[in-house]
Parts: sequence; structure tokens; C-alpha cells
Amino acid sequence: MITSPDAAARAAAYERQLTLTKPTGALGRLEHVSAWICAVQGACPPAAFSRPALVVFAGDHGVARTAGTSAYPPEVTAQMVANLATGGAAANVLARQMHASVRVVDVSVDAEPSYMDGIDPAVVAHRVRRSSGSIDREDAMSVSECRAALAVGAALADEVINAGADIVISGDMGIGNTTSSSVLIAVLTGSSAEAVTGRGTGIDDEGLVRKRAVVDAAMLRADADPVDLLVRVGAPDIAAMVGFLLRAPERGIPVVLDGIVSCAAALVARAIEPEASAWWVAGHRSTEPAATIALAALDLLPVLDLDLRLGEGTGALLALPLINAAALTLAEMATFDSAGVSDRPADA
Amino acid sequence: MITSPDAAARAAAYERQLTLTKPTGALGRLEHVSAWICAVQGACPPAAFSRPALVVFAGDHGVARTAGTSAYPPEVTAQMVANLATGGAAANVLARQMHASVRVVDVSVDAEPSYMDGIDPAVVAHRVRRSSGSIDREDAMSVSECRAALAVGAALADEVINAGADIVISGDMGIGNTTSSSVLIAVLTGSSAEAVTGRGTGIDDEGLVRKRAVVDAAMLRADADPVDLLVRVGAPDIAAMVGFLLRAPERGIPVVLDGIVSCAAALVARAIEPEASAWWVAGHRSTEPAATIALAALDLLPVLDLDLRLGEGTGALLALPLINAAALTLAEMATFDSAGVSDRPADA
Repeated sequence: MITSPDAAARAAAYERQLTLTKPTGALGRLEHVSAWICAVQGACPPAAFSRPALVVFAGDHGVARTAGTSAYPPEVTAQMVANLATGGAAANVLARQMHASVRVVDVSVDAEPSYMDGIDPAVVAHRVRRSSGSIDREDAMSVSECRAALAVGAALADEVINAGADIVISGDMGIGNTTSSSVLIAVLTGSSAEAVTGRGTGIDDEGLVRKRAVVDAAMLRADADPVDLLVRVGAPDIAAMVGFLLRAPERGIPVVLDGIVSCAAALVARAIEPEASAWWVAGHRSTEPAATIALAALDLLPVLDLDLRLGEGTGALLALPLINAAALTLAEMATFDSAGVSDRPADA
Repeated sequence: MITSPDAAARAAAYERQLTLTKPTGALGRLEHVSAWICAVQGACPPAAFSRPALVVFAGDHGVARTAGTSAYPPEVTAQMVANLATGGAAANVLARQMHASVRVVDVSVDAEPSYMDGIDPAVVAHRVRRSSGSIDREDAMSVSECRAALAVGAALADEVINAGADIVISGDMGIGNTTSSSVLIAVLTGSSAEAVTGRGTGIDDEGLVRKRAVVDAAMLRADADPVDLLVRVGAPDIAAMVGFLLRAPERGIPVVLDGIVSCAAALVARAIEPEASAWWVAGHRSTEPAATIALAALDLLPVLDLDLRLGEGTGALLALPLINAAALTLAEMATFDSAGVSDRPADA
């Protein structure tokens, strides 16, 4: 059960913006972000977020191995999960800068679970299956695996929220994950394979043709029901992210979306529970074409547009200081009255 | 005498980016920012900036009073300088968040200097003159006043750099300052009054027509020499900013530009000393049309594009965490070798 964010607090934010010592609307997009913050916090003025938590959902994707849809070999997923678990990935660096916690969860990595021995066995404790089916020809997973993955995402949201998180971020790691994300976005926005398919981690022209054909083939296997859609052309890691994006709003905690994988999961989550999307903000616009299509369909304006295509939650982490800037300016700026500044237009 | 930033460190940054555990180019614009940081620091890997300093150059503009080119009355400048000096303005809030120091300097505010009594008399210690001439019909200031203003900017750069600043920001406060900025940008980029003139703090349609006529009239009074250009159609506060933008590079300290006023000052500063621009980064793209024209002429890609039009240095302050993110990812991410991650393309 997801309740709507506080409409009165949102309206109060816009009212308060008019009283602050700046030209009307001069903080641009941050003013809208500040109103969203008030709505999800149920308070105006709002507080800055102080306990952000990133959860990275990792999984392999059958099509990367069978159809070569990625510039990198599937082995990189497990290697990067280990890198994330030991603090060397981009998301770790940015999380340290932004004082965010990082939790990596192996939902469906294509490696023996022992790859986490001596590193962090908690990473593999939630594994649903090993890799996903090759979605151009077979289901990504079974219905029961999908339900388990959705529950993993909810459990991870509970884990970080119970530990004190006041805003959460959905991150991704998985060679091939832009392929299934593109399929989900195409299906849920009525777009073509050509429109949604991008280069992911940097595939070449030949690979792009292969990837587009895979997206096309998978789209023919799609289903209208959101859970069945995940089963047929999604992936366990993406299903887990869907569960995460639904559970945080149930707990009254807002989410910062990252790139194309977050956007795909968000579209599926909204199809399951429309009210959830009011609790999300888009951290950035990825260079993947499907991300832009999904953001438009989600009616979300991204905070950043830095030509990022890294995933892991990096674009969302980078947006955190701006989100907090929106909260702090609304909360701490002087008003025209308190500062004795004239708010009357000239000649008025 | 301004030396070039370190080309070898810049090249080393691009080399190092290729070794980090991420797809090539996946950090987008931040990778270019990281190379700029290495160049201005003369080191790769770079360090995050820890002592940012904002200097806000305040001044009134004759045309605001004589021609009504602003949505706010000129009295607001002194009121906002007081607000900045007491910590209530947007720039103060953001500077606290970003751990930046704030120095406000009244270069040419149209008020008795006593308005700072009991607040902070240091603010008025550098005053060059009271307001500026109405540039549609008379010079903004005398040549000696312009030289004094340029020296004020240099002195302020020295003041904050001597106090330990490792990166500096040029901020502005002044009713009417987008008018003279628009004139300077039009003249230095060969643009029309129509192309450069925007709504500033939010002037109405009638005011916009008045403002455009003032820009047009002032453009006819322009001069090719950059200092004479400041004298004829600039303003003391903008001249001071020019001095600031030239002095920081002389000291080997980089600058984050803010909005339209920074951009106007930057174009004038570059006309005086072309090498200076290599030490600047654009914090954001203001909604003022002249800012976009100036950024293109300066060949600077802004970090942020948030529809801001507040001035004071706010857009530059907001860019600081992203600039530091560029430095930190380059410095702290694991390499493919160190993390045991495959950097070979699939099938290669």
C-alpha cells in the first residue's frame, strides 16, 4: 500500500519559494525538486537528506553470452561485483564523497557463489538464480524466480531503511542489462527496437545490429502483465530493482533513479503500482536513448545531464548534492520580510 | 603573466581514465572536467578541491534607474548585499553546503556606504564609485575608475588565495547587471541586441522591449579595446570581476564561472589575456540567452543546466561537488589491473 506524497507540503513549498530573497523561479529546476522533497517528507520547510543508501542489483543476462549484445564479456559482472564490494568502483568513490552507504546484492550473477568467499558472503546471500534466460528465445526466469527476485528487492529496501536510510538509490551492475532494459522500455512505451537500442557499455556497429535484432526478437515474446513481462523478457536483477522501487515508497522513503536500468524497472514498477512514481526523482539522463524515452514516459525531468553511461547508481549519487541544495535553499534562505529586501517590481 | 595549464597532466588524465574500471568514456563530461583539473593542478591523479572561495562583486547600474531595465528597483542591490553579508542569500546557503567561503565586495553600489555600518564595513572598503553611468547615453565610468575596479578584482583574488583558496568563484549582485553584461557579450561575440537580451530577474514584455533598446543604444557606444569597452558600456563591478578572472590564473588558481555576468566578464578578460580562459570552467548554463552565446564563444561546456538565473555565484557553487567528483573518480577508482577486471571487449 503506497500513499500519495503530501500535497499540502508540496503546495507550501511553492508558496515559500515566493517569499525567499531571489527572483521568482530563479532556482529553476531546483524549486521543483524542493517541492518534491517537501511532499515526500511531509514537511515544509524540508530537511536535507543525511542518510542516503545505494543498493546495487547485480545479475548476468543470457543474451550477452548467446548473442554478444555487450562490449564486455559476462565474466566482468562478477569481477565488478567484487570491485564494488571492495570499494574500487566509481559508485564507491562517489558514495564516499556523498556519504552514502553501498550495498551490493548478487541477484543472478553467472559465477560460482564462491567468488565472494573472503570478500563479502552477504553479497551472494540473496541469489535467485544464475544468469537469466536468453530473452530472444526463452524466458528470463520462472514466475517463482521472479516473485523471489521482487521479494529480494523489497527485503533490501527494508534492510537499508531499517538501518536508517532517508533516501535510497537503485544501482545496477550486469553485462547485458541494457538489452533487457531496452526491451522493457520499448514494450512499456510503445517504442521500436530501433528507437530504444543504444551502445550500452560501448558496443561497435556490428554489435549494435545484433543487439537491435535481439531486442526485436524479445519484444515479440512480451506480455502485457508487468510480472509476466519480467518473466519473459526481464531479468532477476531488474525484478529485484522493481521490488525495491515499490517497497521504498511503501515505507515512505523517496528514491533517486539512476540510468536506463532504473528507468526500465521504474516503468515496470509503475505498471504494478502507479502511485509509486510520485516517490521517485530522476538523478540524471543517461546517453542511452531508451533512458530518455523512459523518462518522458515517467514524466520525470532529470537533475543532471552529463553524458553519463556508467550505471551502478553513479548518476543518482551525483545528483544528491543538488537534491540537498534544493532542500537547504528552501529551508535556510532569508525571506524578503526577514532580510528587509524589497520584493516589489520596479514601477509597481 | 599567465602560464598555460599543464598539458602533460591533462594528457595523463585521459590516459588514466582508460585504465579505470568503467567503460571507456562512461563518466561523460566529468572525464573532461577531470583532465582540466589535472591541467590546472599540474598533477595526475588530481586532488579534490577543499578550499573553494566565492567572491561576489556588487554594483548598481545606471540604466536600471534611468531606463527601467530590471524587474526590481535599484534599492534591492544594497539590501541584497546586506543579505549576503549576513548569510541569508542563496549563495550563502549553498556556500555553507559546499564548504566555500563567501566574500562580498561593494564595487559600485548606489547607496551611502553607511548601509554596512554594524554589518560588515569591509564590504564597502573597495568601493570605486557609486553606481555606473547610464550606458545607453554615457560612459559607465572613467578610465581611472575602470583601472581601479580591475585592481579591486585582482586584490580580492589575492585576498582569498592568500587565505588558502584552491579554487575560486566569481559571483555577482546588482540590479541591472544583466543589461551591461548583454551589451558586452553582444559586442564581443558579434551578436544582435535581440539575440542577447533576456528577462534577467524576470522583467515583463514591455520591460524587455525597453531593455533591448538600451542594449542596442549601448552597443553603438562600444569600443574595440577591452578596457575602453568596460569604460564605455561595462560597469565597475564587472571590471572588478575581469580583474579577478585574470589574477586567479596568474596565481595558478582555477576559476568556476557562474552565469551571464561571469560570462561577460570572462569574454572581456579573454580579450585582454587569451591564456586566462584555460583556467576557467563553466559551472552552469543560465537561462539568459546571452550566457549560452558567451559559453559557445568561450568554448566552455557548462557542468550544470538547471534553468537557474539567480546569479551570486549560485550555479558555480552547485557545480563544485561535480567538479570534485571528477577529481575523486580519477584519483580513487580501481584500475582494471588492480581490480582484476577484464578490459578486453567480448570476442576480441
